Amino acid sequence: MSGGRSQGALMAAEVAEQPAMVQRILQSQHDALAPIVNRLKAFDPHTVLLVARGTSDHAALFAKYLIETRLGLPAGLVSTSSYTVYGERPRFDGVAWIAVSQSGGSPDLANSTRVARDSGALTISLTNTAASAVQDAAEVALHLDAGEERAVAATKTYTASLLWLWLLVESWADGDLHAADPLPDWMAESLDIPAVLEVSSRYRFVDRLVTTSRGFAYPTAREAALKLMETCYLSAHAFSGADLMHGPLAMIDEDRPVIAVVPEGPGGAALQPVLSSLRERGAEVCVIGPAGAAGSAALQIRLPSGMPEQLAPIVQIVPLQQLARLMALSRGYDPDHPRGLRKVTETH
Amino acid sequence: MSGGRSQGALMAAEVAEQPAMVQRILQSQHDALAPIVNRLKAFDPHTVLLVARGTSDHAALFAKYLIETRLGLPAGLVSTSSYTVYGERPRFDGVAWIAVSQSGGSPDLANSTRVARDSGALTISLTNTAASAVQDAAEVALHLDAGEERAVAATKTYTASLLWLWLLVESWADGDLHAADPLPDWMAESLDIPAVLEVSSRYRFVDRLVTTSRGFAYPTAREAALKLMETCYLSAHAFSGADLMHGPLAMIDEDRPVIAVVPEGPGGAALQPVLSSLRERGAEVCVIGPAGAAGSAALQIRLPSGMPEQLAPIVQIVPLQQLARLMALSRGYDPDHPRGLRKVTETH
Repeated sequence: MSGGRSQGALMAAEVAEQPAMVQRILQSQHDALAPIVNRLKAFDPHTVLLVARGTSDHAALFAKYLIETRLGLPAGLVSTSSYTVYGERPRFDGVAWIAVSQSGGSPDLANSTRVARDSGALTISLTNTAASAVQDAAEVALHLDAGEERAVAATKTYTASLLWLWLLVESWADGDLHAADPLPDWMAESLDIPAVLEVSSRYRFVDRLVTTSRGFAYPTAREAALKLMETCYLSAHAFSGADLMHGPLAMIDEDRPVIAVVPEGPGGAALQPVLSSLRERGAEVCVIGPAGAAGSAALQIRLPSGMPEQLAPIVQIVPLQQLARLMALSRGYDPDHPRGLRKVTETH
Repeated sequence: MSGGRSQGALMAAEVAEQPAMVQRILQSQHDALAPIVNRLKAFDPHTVLLVARGTSDHAALFAKYLIETRLGLPAGLVSTSSYTVYGERPRFDGVAWIAVSQSGGSPDLANSTRVARDSGALTISLTNTAASAVQDAAEVALHLDAGEERAVAATKTYTASLLWLWLLVESWADGDLHAADPLPDWMAESLDIPAVLEVSSRYRFVDRLVTTSRGFAYPTAREAALKLMETCYLSAHAFSGADLMHGPLAMIDEDRPVIAVVPEGPGGAALQPVLSSLRERGAEVCVIGPAGAAGSAALQIRLPSGMPEQLAPIVQIVPLQQLARLMALSRGYDPDHPRGLRKVTETH
């Protein structure tokens, strides 16, 4: 399968490409984005729905927080089965519908997008392929421009999706896009953090772990858990800090490490009671965040300081992608070719 | 803590009360429901948002499917942090907002409901307590009428929430409420299924398992996982069948049992490719569903036949509550008092 390449070489290369990719997108985004933002402003939706699966679903969740906080609009993540399994024809006048998919190939996303379009929604696709069923189904197409992604575990298409969705919402909110200018530097600083290798070694025999965060960084916790499940086959369970307190906290003990993504800003502050409860339960916590975020946590993967909380997810995931890759390699697994998975997943 | 009572006696009693509770709600629902349904019809919302945590969040997810399929309205589960952590003031004209909470005591639910009400939404609370912050925050109150729930792990308030939300949406859609008449019998038949005890014994040393379903029954898979985490402290990870195929499938192997909730109807049919993939990966699957649903699965917990797919979740969870209780007891844990949890969880 790997044609002589070393294990994980594709994933390593695609992770490392991200600073340059972000730089390229930031320089070229205007021509692609401006007409779509104009369409959205003219359409003036009362509600935004997002539809996605897997890694793209975490990008959609990030966009949901942005739409709720920057635009003040109701936003929801669509259960495609309502339209593909149960065949419902909805009332979607005034709804903006955004389908996020690396491949654009999954029938449930294409079919539900077709239903949404036929039901009055303004439909937008965000894909990384030149042509796809999802793109065909949507009225307006936005291209991720991440370059071909060959590793099965998505990395650069995730950060490209986050960035495009941030650019889309921020343009729509007439915000300052230059806030994103330092992203390539922040990402480059976060590519080879020595603590990541240390943590990957410490977690060599871990078979269950929990990831957690709150607000904008919660999608980071979800995506990190998915990367660890895909590449290392362990039980990696993501919870928002608030949801963790409503029940799952009972399962936390000293034998299950917790990875907590703790950004600067209100989301990081809201996590502090969660970190206290984890401490009380004896959990070993690894904090992903800037200097000062770790508190009394045992381990830290230190990120650059001064990142706006809404942009930080584009950076936070990078060391966690590296952690998943290194943990897979240390277990003898090839992160480029996880068992049982293909690059395009077709669900209905 | 348990005052001389045997371990799990509260949870056992509350699980067993459910058929009679459902009977009582079905007989008395009209007076409480009719004015609220009239308000909703007059308000004629373009979008419905639901807000909840923990077990109630699974009831909210069930309602989201109902609203999408029965009313054709866009629906979303709210990220409370957008309103409580980031302080956003949204545009909620034309939005119906439903807050579901057993205790009604969590500040994030009350505060976000207050924001929604001040922002133009028609706000409805669904709680089980006579007075609460969530009820105070909402314009319209619906009472679960489940009777006091004393075990920390919610059981009867979950099925009461599902039933009230089904009644609310079905009344709103001018459907036939008599479809629910057989529920007490179906639940009574599902209280003491011998296979549940057998499965609880077989899973005595399991420390990681996966639950899965699709559509209306997906909330059942989520709630079963939460019950197992709360009472047995194991890693129980719920996935929609479609999401499972987008990555997490890689972690499935013969050492991690899978509980699949397979209803009659399109949702059960849509699960068949998932069950095939699980078989290919060597997973031992336990099917919760009617006769014929198990296919080649190793284990089955058989439910009554002929339940409409939209009502089946109110029954499916009952043997899974029993499974969690029996598994906790067989591990020497008291399911009435999970470690580290209290009945009212306050998150902000």
